[in-house]
Amino acid sequence: MMAMSSSRPYTPRRALMYVPGCDARKVAKIPQLGADCVCLDCEDGVAANMKEAARRDIRAVLDTQGVEFGSSECSVRVNSVESGLCREDVLAVLGGPNLPSAIHLPKVASREQLLYLSSCVREAVGRPLTTKLGLIMFIESARSLLDMDAICRAAWEVSEEGGDLVPEAVVFGSDDFCADIGATRTGDCSEVLVARQMLVLAAKAHGLQAIDAVHIDYKDTEGLWRQAEEGARWGFTGKQVIHPGQVATVQAAFSPSRERVEWAEALLEAHRASQEEGKGAFSFRGAMIDMPTVRQAENVLRIGGRNK
Amino acid sequence: MMAMSSSRPYTPRRALMYVPGCDARKVAKIPQLGADCVCLDCEDGVAANMKEAARRDIRAVLDTQGVEFGSSECSVRVNSVESGLCREDVLAVLGGPNLPSAIHLPKVASREQLLYLSSCVREAVGRPLTTKLGLIMFIESARSLLDMDAICRAAWEVSEEGGDLVPEAVVFGSDDFCADIGATRTGDCSEVLVARQMLVLAAKAHGLQAIDAVHIDYKDTEGLWRQAEEGARWGFTGKQVIHPGQVATVQAAFSPSRERVEWAEALLEAHRASQEEGKGAFSFRGAMIDMPTVRQAENVLRIGGRNK
Amino acid sequence: MMAMSSSRPYTPRRALMYVPGCDARKVAKIPQLGADCVCLDCEDGVAANMKEAARRDIRAVLDTQGVEFGSSECSVRVNSVESGLCREDVLAVLGGPNLPSAIHLPKVASREQLLYLSSCVREAVGRPLTTKLGLIMFIESARSLLDMDAICRAAWEVSEEGGDLVPEAVVFGSDDFCADIGATRTGDCSEVLVARQMLVLAAKAHGLQAIDAVHIDYKDTEGLWRQAEEGARWGFTGKQVIHPGQVATVQAAFSPSRERVEWAEALLEAHRASQEEGKGAFSFRGAMIDMPTVRQAENVLRIGGRNK
Repeated sequence: MMAMSSSRPYTPRRALMYVPGCDARKVAKIPQLGADCVCLDCEDGVAANMKEAARRDIRAVLDTQGVEFGSSECSVRVNSVESGLCREDVLAVLGGPNLPSAIHLPKVASREQLLYLSSCVREAVGRPLTTKLGLIMFIESARSLLDMDAICRAAWEVSEEGGDLVPEAVVFGSDDFCADIGATRTGDCSEVLVARQMLVLAAKAHGLQAIDAVHIDYKDTEGLWRQAEEGARWGFTGKQVIHPGQVATVQAAFSPSRERVEWAEALLEAHRASQEEGKGAFSFRGAMIDMPTVRQAENVLRIGGRNK
Repeated sequence: MMAMSSSRPYTPRRALMYVPGCDARKVAKIPQLGADCVCLDCEDGVAANMKEAARRDIRAVLDTQGVEFGSSECSVRVNSVESGLCREDVLAVLGGPNLPSAIHLPKVASREQLLYLSSCVREAVGRPLTTKLGLIMFIESARSLLDMDAICRAAWEVSEEGGDLVPEAVVFGSDDFCADIGATRTGDCSEVLVARQMLVLAAKAHGLQAIDAVHIDYKDTEGLWRQAEEGARWGFTGKQVIHPGQVATVQAAFSPSRERVEWAEALLEAHRASQEEGKGAFSFRGAMIDMPTVRQAENVLRIGGRNK
Repeated sequence: MMAMSSSRPYTPRRALMYVPGCDARKVAKIPQLGADCVCLDCEDGVAANMKEAARRDIRAVLDTQGVEFGSSECSVRVNSVESGLCREDVLAVLGGPNLPSAIHLPKVASREQLLYLSSCVREAVGRPLTTKLGLIMFIESARSLLDMDAICRAAWEVSEEGGDLVPEAVVFGSDDFCADIGATRTGDCSEVLVARQMLVLAAKAHGLQAIDAVHIDYKDTEGLWRQAEEGARWGFTGKQVIHPGQVATVQAAFSPSRERVEWAEALLEAHRASQEEGKGAFSFRGAMIDMPTVRQAENVLRIGGRNK
């Protein structure tokens, strides 16, 4: 994993849970979810004639702070740039004193779309932000997956050229992707095997989190565990969930093992010792350790610590 | 799937069957094949010293119309550009009043080859065609698979700059591909898993059909079904066949399910209603429907209707 | 496989075995290894405070020729360019009358690194070499795998612009790769399935050998055979080994079958006959044979002959 400079702290996103912005009943349950990242949704979870209501309700959730997110990140998914709804979403959602931690952009297809989102954010907040917002990008078509390397590069460039968003994660939108390539979703996900590993590859090449497909059958805990555990082994850092009952299983699968936590603790101890001696790179258990690995270890503890 | 403008109607190609152009016995059986696409072959199915005969015989089949293709598409595979035989093939095959529906170009490697084929076609027909011919491209090497995105883009550009061919399909030439990368063909195709899913990905990113590898063992109906059904699930739209006995199995695997046909019928009904109300995009079963999806539904019915 | 002109003979590398340059006990065992390629290591197998000793010892092995390599290729792995140790390694290792057959460059990331290595080699040998050295490149990160097509192209260009190295192989550095993408190594290697097939694809598109991941559990002969046999079927030409006990199994898996040897012998016989008749391309068992295939057959016999 590349290390990218960012003024934002690392936010683990093992379980990413959507809550339709205009569904008061589900919004009220947010404090009980325990998901790492809660996404107030303006897009697929909201019907066309409810878009206005969703924007308004999300703004209210942010302003009144009547909802306790606890340790969950509060984020918002706007509609895609090509939908024509994106700017209105951003203006409404960011048009108040309290901002979400991150913005999800669906169906990312080009640098132009990223520039457009960036300009919408600036228009909404009216000034460069001191703490930037996280940017979470959805890959949902054959074209976007083929262009993902260029899209991620563009996201970093737009960010570094003064944008208010910092790219942090890529999400695999498997249902739209399968519809796009004409594939049929199955339980073992064999039809998206290559797509999933390509997405991890491109995300990690750009220092981004990779968030896996949703497991639709929310009663199938065993299948969920199998799929989540496989994703974690392949390098995904988290998974989308569609039901509160999926959160704990997914978080367990994406939490570092006891061995991994022990490795991270020992490595950071060796790093501290090496720093005190004024050395740069240092050797640990036979491997030369560089800063990306040190940060990886820090992230392991950040996630592992949560779970204790 | 992207929607590309084309004056040609959509041609389903679930089963693509080769018939050596110079094999009179096999040509005579074409009316009984029932394959969606019959390919009169000048290339691999024809020995080096029979190339002239194949051209002449294909011309005769086209001219005299002594062969009833029925609902099968009549198409021709010329030799690759690098073989040095392509121009003579095209001049002979297109040098008469009746033209095939589509041209198959093997071992496509570059934009230059596509321009060359296009110039051969124009030379043969002597005028811009009012109904363009379909272009079916074969990916058969590591280099071509890596370049496939660029090759498909070039095919569309050559077509849109006044060419007489419209790109419609990409075929996976698995045997040449395996020889090229030094792989061994096996029954489960695990050695080309990534190649097959990459080919679907690039084809669908360019709105093209993806036609899967041939199953060599023509007596193994069960293995054929498994492979065809897998290909259909992964997003392939059809499969090459080498024996008449494979046609029905392959067509069944690549036909839309009853649920899919029902979805398409209902979606097109909703589309008609929305058109009458003067609306653009419309919502159907919770999803916003755009024109590519409408065309997808039309294609489902075109194939599904055949099968009834 | 593309055929690249090279003044060097083809060197099979079924089993690639590392020997730490400074480990006198292991160096003394080289004559008994029987590996196709023995790699005297300056990199991961050598601790940070032993780098100087490794260089010196490797130089001594080359100079005194006190070690009989037999049919094994003698090659050296220097440290990566980004480590800052590469130039010193090259100057020491190539700073005497006897040169290794090939140089392994770990963690290749860019054309600049290949140019740098090339300049180090020229600095060390002081003159253009009449017999160039082989270049074996390691792909060990997400970024490098995504850039592998460009990296291989650059390696050929640097070579053809007067460099002293000829690209010959790409090695999959699976452990560093998995650490980079955050994946967990497992016995069935499912987490690197796509990476492995992509590596074969890009290597073969550039006429290079593809050398598979190491099987860490050196007591598990059955698992080693399964993995090696799978790699051979997928188009890998060899595999890294970490223990002398792995050599024979790996060589068996990557040796051509009796049928393949028979094919090669018959093809070369047909080629000789065709040459005598003054013909260019010729037909053999129904296929047109070009020079890359002839060279492939020659390589089959070169490996197959060894094994008898």
